[in-house]
Amino acid sequence: MEVINYLVGYEGMKIVQNTEYFNFSLDSVLLANFITIRSKVKNIIDLGTGNAPIPLLLSTRTNANIIGVEIQEPIYQLAIKSVEINNLKNQIKILNEDVRTIDKHFDSDSFDIVLSNPPYFKYNKDSLVNNNYCKTVARHEVMLNIDDILKVSKKLLKNQGYFGIVHRPDRMIEILNKMKEYNIEPKRIRFIYPNKDETCNIILIEGIKNGKEGIKIESPLFVHDRKGNYTREVRKMFGE
Amino acid sequence: MEVINYLVGYEGMKIVQNTEYFNFSLDSVLLANFITIRSKVKNIIDLGTGNAPIPLLLSTRTNANIIGVEIQEPIYQLAIKSVEINNLKNQIKILNEDVRTIDKHFDSDSFDIVLSNPPYFKYNKDSLVNNNYCKTVARHEVMLNIDDILKVSKKLLKNQGYFGIVHRPDRMIEILNKMKEYNIEPKRIRFIYPNKDETCNIILIEGIKNGKEGIKIESPLFVHDRKGNYTREVRKMFGE
Repeated sequence: MEVINYLVGYEGMKIVQNTEYFNFSLDSVLLANFITIRSKVKNIIDLGTGNAPIPLLLSTRTNANIIGVEIQEPIYQLAIKSVEINNLKNQIKILNEDVRTIDKHFDSDSFDIVLSNPPYFKYNKDSLVNNNYCKTVARHEVMLNIDDILKVSKKLLKNQGYFGIVHRPDRMIEILNKMKEYNIEPKRIRFIYPNKDETCNIILIEGIKNGKEGIKIESPLFVHDRKGNYTREVRKMFGE
Repeated sequence: MEVINYLVGYEGMKIVQNTEYFNFSLDSVLLANFITIRSKVKNIIDLGTGNAPIPLLLSTRTNANIIGVEIQEPIYQLAIKSVEINNLKNQIKILNEDVRTIDKHFDSDSFDIVLSNPPYFKYNKDSLVNNNYCKTVARHEVMLNIDDILKVSKKLLKNQGYFGIVHRPDRMIEILNKMKEYNIEPKRIRFIYPNKDETCNIILIEGIKNGKEGIKIESPLFVHDRKGNYTREVRKMFGE
């Protein structure tokens, strides 16, 4: 079922979802808030944009041009609708393309920021995957893995451009190493915890293309307080 | 000046310090509390033990034999005295040896746990080092670096034995990779923050020799509360 949800607090911003196969997650909200946006930023690209939560949220932080890339046609359609109903067609462009070859559509070294909330799970024939094909592609590395993302990001990013990714902690070492391999130096990490007592379940990493070595681990973020409500910082991200 | 300090809360446990060149730090307390100690543990070794805070603290958690290795003679003397005044000579043995060759003194695969609170800073001729030679060796990688520690740890550890290290976050990626290189799989990390708003300044990492891949990032630890007092968890570590 296709539904239109409000992005709470964002001055009436709406997002088109489909309850069967795609709902945006907290992860996208976290990444859109985490990424460094300097005032001179002109071009941003979100690789594997889904129904475009990251472009929508970024539009509240910057006037830069934002591209979203989504390979799956039905999800791309949701993204297009979301951009339209928010009257953001001038700022956000959604492309129904494969991330792995998206660099062919742009000059190299042309983006200030590359972002991705990619599929989290490794894929192999034995993977427990979703019956729903759209969900499988969004969650498992069927069509897009870390290497693909970094290879393309390295090409698209300007020198000293920012790369931002949200992922699971069990992939951290691999991601940090691959970033270095593609000359995107990890500079900031933030660990997200469901609450004060649980282990981390989401990581945010920012790197700089050809950046100097040296990483900062930022203050941790707890999503829920003791009562199970969103913490103040998370409520703020939702525009409250 | 040589002084005897109480390890607060530890049933009168004392530690011998020398205000000129060696005082144990919170880092050692954190590592001694962090490391997993299974009930069957028989042999533990602390590489670069300083004035032996880690062996002393571990003696409150286990009856296993604990070895501390300290290359610097004057600091070794402090460690010996600390063990003596706490009547722990039966449990803790301090060796005035070089960690880099300590594996010659023991059978391979003979330790259940290897720990280290090593020198934190890279050393080169331009390093800003302490005028005091003892401090320089304790803080800079003059005589002992990450590779040395892991090489020896790999030899000393039993299969599935535990390795624990405390270090600075800017060395995290390097340490995690080197652990993997020496077949000590990183399994648990804990990030320590001076308080809720600051970036992480201490990391605790535990690995298992020949362990299965898969890392857990534990709940963060804040050292101070808003008022600048130690938090309850840290006070507990000090035995309060």
